[in-house]
Amino acid sequence: MSDGAEDIEWRSVCPISSALDLLGDKWSLLVIRDLISHGTRTYSEFRESPEHIATNILASRLKLLTSLGLIERTNPEGAARNNAYRLTAKGEALRPVLEELARWSQAHLKELHRGLVDIL
Amino acid sequence: MSDGAEDIEWRSVCPISSALDLLGDKWSLLVIRDLISHGTRTYSEFRESPEHIATNILASRLKLLTSLGLIERTNPEGAARNNAYRLTAKGEALRPVLEELARWSQAHLKELHRGLVDIL
Repeated sequence: MSDGAEDIEWRSVCPISSALDLLGDKWSLLVIRDLISHGTRTYSEFRESPEHIATNILASRLKLLTSLGLIERTNPEGAARNNAYRLTAKGEALRPVLEELARWSQAHLKELHRGLVDIL
Repeated sequence: MSDGAEDIEWRSVCPISSALDLLGDKWSLLVIRDLISHGTRTYSEFRESPEHIATNILASRLKLLTSLGLIERTNPEGAARNNAYRLTAKGEALRPVLEELARWSQAHLKELHRGLVDIL
């Protein structure tokens, strides 16, 4: 995955495909989830989430999501690793996507994943 | 990515994370999109979609989505490559996820991707 918005190769003009060109991986929407739950998050707080994101993946996703304008650093002048991140309006607008994913899982995945909890 | 539901490693008990354990890639939700648009699709029709999915990725996703119970073959006795696929109720239930992804793209990605079309 690229770390910069300028390197994106759009597969088609379809808005679903284009959203997945940016966010179609296992981690980007979890970073968004953590920011929606917490408002602001530091690098080390992201690392404490139960999915245990690897540092290199976290750094790459934070860079890409910042480049895309979905998140921003609370202190843009500080060092990246000592900084906190928050959602922009464009990132916050992903909330309905996460809600529908959660709703689908809660309705349809409990048979496959018995430990699944409800969050909605 | 695994081809079978039995091999899934759930990263946590979170329903968002769990949905992404299954569908967090660039292609699975496009296969679902094609089935939502067309009702039933053959292997060669999937290949004709504008994103040009590779045959090995298509075969892997069809196998996984079938194993998860999101899609089914219209003639389960026939050869996989000569068959058509349709959504189950569990797969059809992903429609709101795709709609919210499309809505987000239409509202927020046109600045990055000028060719983006509206589908909603």
